[in-house]
Amino acid sequence: MAQLIALLQANPKVGDIFGNVKLVERLAKLAAEKGAGMAITPELIISGYPPRDLLLQPDFVNQCYNAGKEINSQIPLLVGSPLPSEPRQRPGNGVIRCGNGEGGREVTRKQLLPTYDVFDELRYFSPDNRPGIVRSMSGLDFGVTICEDAWQHAGLVPSDYEVDPISQLAGWTGQGVAEKGGDRVLVARCAAETLDHPFLLCNQVGGNDDLLFDGRSVAAWPDGTCVQAPAWCEGFLLVDLDEPNNCEWHCLEDSDCINHGMCDLNRNDGNNEIIATESFKEPLSSSDLLNAVSVGLRDYCKKTGLEHIVLGLSGGIDSAVAASVAVRALGPNRVTGLLMPSRYSSEHSVVDAKATAEALGCEWMEYPIETMHSAAETILALELENGDAVAAENIQARLRGLLVMGIANARGAMAIATGNKSELGQGFCTLYGDMAGGYAPLGDLWKTEVYAIAGAINLEYESQGRPLPINNSTLNKAPSAELAPDQRDDQILPPYEILDEILRCYIEENLSESDIVLRGFTKEIVRSVLERLAKTEHKRWQMPPAPRVSRRAFGQGWRQPLAAKHNWRN
Amino acid sequence: MAQLIALLQANPKVGDIFGNVKLVERLAKLAAEKGAGMAITPELIISGYPPRDLLLQPDFVNQCYNAGKEINSQIPLLVGSPLPSEPRQRPGNGVIRCGNGEGGREVTRKQLLPTYDVFDELRYFSPDNRPGIVRSMSGLDFGVTICEDAWQHAGLVPSDYEVDPISQLAGWTGQGVAEKGGDRVLVARCAAETLDHPFLLCNQVGGNDDLLFDGRSVAAWPDGTCVQAPAWCEGFLLVDLDEPNNCEWHCLEDSDCINHGMCDLNRNDGNNEIIATESFKEPLSSSDLLNAVSVGLRDYCKKTGLEHIVLGLSGGIDSAVAASVAVRALGPNRVTGLLMPSRYSSEHSVVDAKATAEALGCEWMEYPIETMHSAAETILALELENGDAVAAENIQARLRGLLVMGIANARGAMAIATGNKSELGQGFCTLYGDMAGGYAPLGDLWKTEVYAIAGAINLEYESQGRPLPINNSTLNKAPSAELAPDQRDDQILPPYEILDEILRCYIEENLSESDIVLRGFTKEIVRSVLERLAKTEHKRWQMPPAPRVSRRAFGQGWRQPLAAKHNWRN
Repeated sequence: MAQLIALLQANPKVGDIFGNVKLVERLAKLAAEKGAGMAITPELIISGYPPRDLLLQPDFVNQCYNAGKEINSQIPLLVGSPLPSEPRQRPGNGVIRCGNGEGGREVTRKQLLPTYDVFDELRYFSPDNRPGIVRSMSGLDFGVTICEDAWQHAGLVPSDYEVDPISQLAGWTGQGVAEKGGDRVLVARCAAETLDHPFLLCNQVGGNDDLLFDGRSVAAWPDGTCVQAPAWCEGFLLVDLDEPNNCEWHCLEDSDCINHGMCDLNRNDGNNEIIATESFKEPLSSSDLLNAVSVGLRDYCKKTGLEHIVLGLSGGIDSAVAASVAVRALGPNRVTGLLMPSRYSSEHSVVDAKATAEALGCEWMEYPIETMHSAAETILALELENGDAVAAENIQARLRGLLVMGIANARGAMAIATGNKSELGQGFCTLYGDMAGGYAPLGDLWKTEVYAIAGAINLEYESQGRPLPINNSTLNKAPSAELAPDQRDDQILPPYEILDEILRCYIEENLSESDIVLRGFTKEIVRSVLERLAKTEHKRWQMPPAPRVSRRAFGQGWRQPLAAKHNWRN
Repeated sequence: MAQLIALLQANPKVGDIFGNVKLVERLAKLAAEKGAGMAITPELIISGYPPRDLLLQPDFVNQCYNAGKEINSQIPLLVGSPLPSEPRQRPGNGVIRCGNGEGGREVTRKQLLPTYDVFDELRYFSPDNRPGIVRSMSGLDFGVTICEDAWQHAGLVPSDYEVDPISQLAGWTGQGVAEKGGDRVLVARCAAETLDHPFLLCNQVGGNDDLLFDGRSVAAWPDGTCVQAPAWCEGFLLVDLDEPNNCEWHCLEDSDCINHGMCDLNRNDGNNEIIATESFKEPLSSSDLLNAVSVGLRDYCKKTGLEHIVLGLSGGIDSAVAASVAVRALGPNRVTGLLMPSRYSSEHSVVDAKATAEALGCEWMEYPIETMHSAAETILALELENGDAVAAENIQARLRGLLVMGIANARGAMAIATGNKSELGQGFCTLYGDMAGGYAPLGDLWKTEVYAIAGAINLEYESQGRPLPINNSTLNKAPSAELAPDQRDDQILPPYEILDEILRCYIEENLSESDIVLRGFTKEIVRSVLERLAKTEHKRWQMPPAPRVSRRAFGQGWRQPLAAKHNWRN
């Protein structure tokens, strides 16, 4: 029988060195039982990704390295871990060879350190400049690249590096190449073709803080054949280098896989033109986005020890979708929705919110805010009489934030913010009001995407013959904050299809105002959108973490300078 | 007469290309009138520093470059600006030679790009690898390094770079070396000695967003002689290369210099052992810290167009100091203090808060929160009865946050948060409560430093024969949040002298728990401090910008991972 190699598609927890080691040992043992002769982990599995400032502590890096070397496995492993460096150098982002009673040792360090978008690796690591070659491991020789190392070759980086580690390896005649921690079929096939060897890519799955990995580990062969593991599932891909058809996916049994019924392998034979099943360069499908934000919220709660979620339910689309995602993440018994009508709330806002909670089967409570609202207005009467009308609107939003936080604090639960990226980008949200919460599950979704995943949620319930969480009234009503009489978003904003595309051009493509106009929008609309965006930068500075899908994020760790803008409104 | 060179110690505004160009032209004209034959600006003066994500827009970089080239000056200039690069490369951080009717052109790009602490340059710029040499400029040849380029040589970087641009220049025989944008006398003297030429260092002054530059531009000679411009003042240092005693400092007349009466040059003759007058490696003096946070708040308001500040006054040390800093930044007529007593507030809290406001001469108002407090408790009665006691405490803090924000919103003013780094690091603050605000002027100060600058504030008022803003009662009372009966910080926290030092060891020195114990603290105290620190990481994620003094900051742009921690409390 040919050599079987297991790609351990694991979901580590940042900082939990001991737990991550146990996870690798468990997966490796299961893989060995299924016949694997060796196994590969994702990048930085020992520390979890992104370890951020933990890497500034030499003690943490040493602990990772020592724990990685001593991993107990009957088959040999290639394990991703931070590695200590010489004095006055940052640590390395590397790979340890261990297991099989051999005694662990470092075998390579990452060369290309992405420092753009969701990545910040040059802040934390020193780059290496040597190709990663591992000889005589379980009878094979390996070339090893770590994530970004393989991306330069496919041209999928925003600015070019000076070296291309795949080309470095191309002159070398090993028997396989292992790429660790990245994603995307295109990169794997491109590398396999150039190298004329199979290329294996083991990706992390799950969320840590605000960063999400989708899994979908890949094996690719020089003829274009490839096999891809499912997304949002923890387990291992068993790869038969000689016979792609023998590859198998094994889900970790007690993994609370959020990707029900989608745990099949994707297989493509090399004769077909192959499009990666999902690529973050392309728009994601609504069901994939739904899985992404559900995993993000689930893992955030699981890894920070939170067992219950509280959120406001307004009867609008955002809070209905956020509640559905919360139920998908933790189950209906761990979600509480608060209805907090004010004198400006429409009748349907309460009716629709109740319908969502009932359909989801979660707890809900109704707390009218009128008494607090009147008390606040009495205290601030003089200021409100002569002041900006936004002050009176924000009071309502902040009283709701206070109640949601009050229940969360009393129960040791977490409040979540229900806003989306389009509204945040236009300032249609209130700091310390609807922006209050430990996490914003929809914070990196455009409003049009919120509608799309509302459809995916309803489809899921419909297929189970259950009442729909997001009813037609919620889906079809004109978006409104209901903080003043007859208020509607479209009194100020362009339609969300237009707004989202203008924001996307600016945030994801870095286009200037005039470049966006060339895409077919009127100058007036583009300018008004970008001016509102600039004026609300300060809100993004204080937004809660949101699950980030690469190449789309803003407001988290880097940002536009506030001082570049002249206007201000809280 | 010898050649005079002007170092333009300017205070640019991030993103305001046109305004920054005008500022350079104005300073250069004034310098020429005083006899300067040429002038040098700080790093990235055209974009302002830090330009952050504006640099991702090619259009912005091109605009900076074109504007920089066309600066109108009768004397030649070396001007810092972002520079466009080849396709698929990040822009350069460079210097343009312009003025004197020569037509502008690029002369060098920065080699060493700091990506640690408050800096993130590898995210935005491509590094260069060529020494910066400028020939025949106003009759002189120059070697040019940009900020970090000169720091490697003095060993003042946290991890070593592969090259040392000062050593590159040491073999070259020009007549002067200009270093742009950094600070510190040690770097300048070290470089001048190695190069055997005078070394000039032109530093930015003022705040942009959360980043502060202190000015203190330097000229150093190979024999150790050096001349240093004052801190926190905008103007220019006129350097006579042949005669250090002829150097002159000229303050920009209409610059609202916050450093009253301290605008003298520091001069050191080379025979003495010279200690830099101030170094961020050393503890800053309390008056310097007071200037720093005052300039930070002033510039944040000025550059974002805010003209009025609102804050809560509790009678405690933090809010008294924050109010004093606000008055220093904007003047008493632009500051409003709110007294918001609850049923748990002590009598002296109101009396002391009024005394502070009266001494400062700013507006104050008293808004008891009892009606809102009772209304909130009635709504949340069931939850509060059985829930965590922290929920009831947070309600009071959040009602106060709501009132402060309400007045700020109504007036188009900015609320400021009054907390310090020690309390934030221990979770002794409430998200959306006392943490609410657009800016946290004391957010990067330890509690012991808040006490120190309280002393500096009182000294300033005392010297003017005025009543002291921070009275003895405020200075001497035991710190308390007054959110529950007889609550005091020291019921849980160690004395602030001990707490601050433990936090400093962890945050600034990246020491592990056991390393901190070796510094002479008990294991129990160190562990309890670090555990509270870990549990409150989520609060720092959402903190407002605070003026950052290099090598001390946390929670702004990089951070510890939340998922590394198990516990949670909002």
